Amino acid sequence: MCALSVKRSEDFSRWYQAAVIEADLAERSSVRGCMVIKPWGYSIWENMQSILDRKFKELGVRNCYFPLFIPVDLFAKETEHIEGFAKEMAIVTHSKLEKIDGKLVPTGPIEVPLAVRPTSEMIIGESFAKWVKSHRDLPLLVNQWCNVVRWEMRTRLFLRTMEFLWQEGHTAHETSEEATEFAKMMHGVYNWFITDILKIPAIMGKKPDYERFPGAVNTYTMEAMMQDGKALQAATSHYLGQTFSKAVGIQFQGRNEQLQFAYTSSWGISTRIIGGLIMTHGDDEGINTPISISPYHIVIIPIIKDEMSKNSIFEYCEKIRSVVNGNYRVLIDKTDELPQNKKWDYIRKGVPIICEIGERDVSSDSVLFHRRQPNIEKLSCRFDEFEAKSSSILQEHDNTLYKKALAMNEEKTIRNIRTIEQAKEFFESGRTGFVVANWKITKNDIEQLYEMGVSVRCSLIDSPEEFILAKAY
Amino acid sequence: MCALSVKRSEDFSRWYQAAVIEADLAERSSVRGCMVIKPWGYSIWENMQSILDRKFKELGVRNCYFPLFIPVDLFAKETEHIEGFAKEMAIVTHSKLEKIDGKLVPTGPIEVPLAVRPTSEMIIGESFAKWVKSHRDLPLLVNQWCNVVRWEMRTRLFLRTMEFLWQEGHTAHETSEEATEFAKMMHGVYNWFITDILKIPAIMGKKPDYERFPGAVNTYTMEAMMQDGKALQAATSHYLGQTFSKAVGIQFQGRNEQLQFAYTSSWGISTRIIGGLIMTHGDDEGINTPISISPYHIVIIPIIKDEMSKNSIFEYCEKIRSVVNGNYRVLIDKTDELPQNKKWDYIRKGVPIICEIGERDVSSDSVLFHRRQPNIEKLSCRFDEFEAKSSSILQEHDNTLYKKALAMNEEKTIRNIRTIEQAKEFFESGRTGFVVANWKITKNDIEQLYEMGVSVRCSLIDSPEEFILAKAY
Repeated sequence: MCALSVKRSEDFSRWYQAAVIEADLAERSSVRGCMVIKPWGYSIWENMQSILDRKFKELGVRNCYFPLFIPVDLFAKETEHIEGFAKEMAIVTHSKLEKIDGKLVPTGPIEVPLAVRPTSEMIIGESFAKWVKSHRDLPLLVNQWCNVVRWEMRTRLFLRTMEFLWQEGHTAHETSEEATEFAKMMHGVYNWFITDILKIPAIMGKKPDYERFPGAVNTYTMEAMMQDGKALQAATSHYLGQTFSKAVGIQFQGRNEQLQFAYTSSWGISTRIIGGLIMTHGDDEGINTPISISPYHIVIIPIIKDEMSKNSIFEYCEKIRSVVNGNYRVLIDKTDELPQNKKWDYIRKGVPIICEIGERDVSSDSVLFHRRQPNIEKLSCRFDEFEAKSSSILQEHDNTLYKKALAMNEEKTIRNIRTIEQAKEFFESGRTGFVVANWKITKNDIEQLYEMGVSVRCSLIDSPEEFILAKAY
Repeated sequence: MCALSVKRSEDFSRWYQAAVIEADLAERSSVRGCMVIKPWGYSIWENMQSILDRKFKELGVRNCYFPLFIPVDLFAKETEHIEGFAKEMAIVTHSKLEKIDGKLVPTGPIEVPLAVRPTSEMIIGESFAKWVKSHRDLPLLVNQWCNVVRWEMRTRLFLRTMEFLWQEGHTAHETSEEATEFAKMMHGVYNWFITDILKIPAIMGKKPDYERFPGAVNTYTMEAMMQDGKALQAATSHYLGQTFSKAVGIQFQGRNEQLQFAYTSSWGISTRIIGGLIMTHGDDEGINTPISISPYHIVIIPIIKDEMSKNSIFEYCEKIRSVVNGNYRVLIDKTDELPQNKKWDYIRKGVPIICEIGERDVSSDSVLFHRRQPNIEKLSCRFDEFEAKSSSILQEHDNTLYKKALAMNEEKTIRNIRTIEQAKEFFESGRTGFVVANWKITKNDIEQLYEMGVSVRCSLIDSPEEFILAKAY
């Protein structure tokens, strides 16, 4: 029996949809392209936020909040940037609603239309221009956690939605070298977060020119392979050169007394990574989450067959919680739902250990539980063994997830591709995965690949002549 | 010498502006009516969030995230609600920008215009309608931390801005009693947060009919008195009856097997409270923050006159930090700014203890510091006394703030007003403050008061025949 209604092997795309919905992470809203993030999904995001936020603060980055709206004429000051976003922006044009002939109509047209931020380089740059006067004000390191909007036609929960949540860091520096170094360091932070924390194997790469963020000089990317062999851009860090500092005038008095333009960087990761997490670690039973971001590590389900034994079972559940609490997040689910339904619900949600505690466990001083990884397995132990047992399972959990993901990754990676023909052959055969290639790729090659739905994801940071070809989300 | 450029007694409104700007909490942005919340201001907000968020979670409330946009036709389903907000909404009407005759123009008109949420009863209610099927699904308790937009013509930093940050809690219940109880409980939580945590004396009240939230049956409010005697609505909790459940169809199978409409509540507090904090505890030297939300409790400023002694001074600063760290948030400010400027900056920011550490302190094993409350005072002690001294100062800090605020409050409160004439006399004399009144107030009375800029803020929860008259923010 599988907990999810669709298997990965049947239809990966439908499986993904089922995993999100059936683990109760998120759902579509009536607003076209927007999603509702439900408690379990939002809790995963909160855990991610808290880990990243702590890291950013350790690095001296300070949180701020900048306006949701960007006046269109400000946005337009940087040509490449506006061109990159002009076709996918929500534009506010009115400030009122009025009932005209029984129908609510926008009225009160505003002078300068406002774009709902798709990203904040321009609006944050404008503040930077005010804040930076001397080289002593640099580096300037800020971040905001917020919502952004990009008008998307075809949307998928977490992966591509009109509105999404993210953090966007923005920094200004005295020299090109410092700004580059900072952008690279943040690339390293994302690498740590994605591989060490989320246990998603990913490639540190640099985007080709034509795939860069609009306005960037260099875009560093984390490319992760999903179980269907497609790539997901999991986070990016941009070295922006003087593009934005020239557009909005971030100038400072240098050490040589001359007025000069600052060098900036920006870097972000979004709720999209939750989609990546699901497509990396999910299985036919549901999603799986590494320990540090799991909403709960252990869920205890009391099984009450007789009201008489209710109190003693609840007490025993509390006793179990008390031996593992502190180190792990533990939930005792006392809701009215049927225990069997609860169990499958938590399996779909990827809870690493699910205890089912009934009268027999109380009287025999034992604990019945289900381990989620590497396979769902029903286990039992004496009460006094449970602390050590659960702890060893939870310590192995992340490792198991990572090993599985890495094995899948290896299986779907082909190396040493030296010609367009070899590359085409791979994808024409119907296979998916990462092709690690190394040849002088031409515009014509790129077009041929593009027609097959394949793109150059990035060149490798550690081996810049090599590049990755893949289909992508 | 005063740290701020304007004194409260000169011009309270200009003083407020100066306090926000000169303590570097926030500033205006180029987007009309929107502000930029700067690191110190945002850190205060983060501390507030973390305290409230923990409390909400303890009460079983779970965080979610709902769409920024509300289709206008959905919004319009509740007459009173839409009428309350129709005149102050940002409306998205287009999804693209295009260059026409060299000018960027909104194109791609969208079918149903989208309102940027001014509040989320309708859009969250729509999700509730999907989630609630049986009485077993109730109560449903959710919250979101997000941005909202209300088109304001006259804006003031924190107090009234077009976009602001807040939390909005939304709940659905089986019975009217439960929903009312919950709304009242959250009112109690806000009372705890505002008086016990923020040390702002405030009145627990109920709004008169004509001042209720659009669509609410009852609005419970916290009314705090600012130093100029004006009232600030600091948080509200609404019992919404079946208004929204009928508008969007939140129906459930009751215990009697009948389909029935749920009863809902909503409750919120916003970044506006930072304005209230400043106008309650601020003085002519700058802002003051109670301990639990202060970004830093102790700032140590190294005073380097001679590069030779730099390392020993830095080491000594670390040594000071090490004895107080853990219990308190401590910053050693090693930036290049002049020590004198740093000191005044932290005074304006309301840091409770500011140490100035130079060569002499190192050699004499002593600590020179400035205590912020009850008055700025320069003190000194032996190194081994500093832990106890600073701890006793910080323990007194909140109490001092509260006592000052309470005294101001008492001074500007007049009680036992029994007629419109007595009330008018008070305000006509040019005094400001809270008038605690008790008479059968008529529509005509209300209009007369309104002409004087005075309104009925609320009736008292503990004494419902009494009501508060005041000018308000």
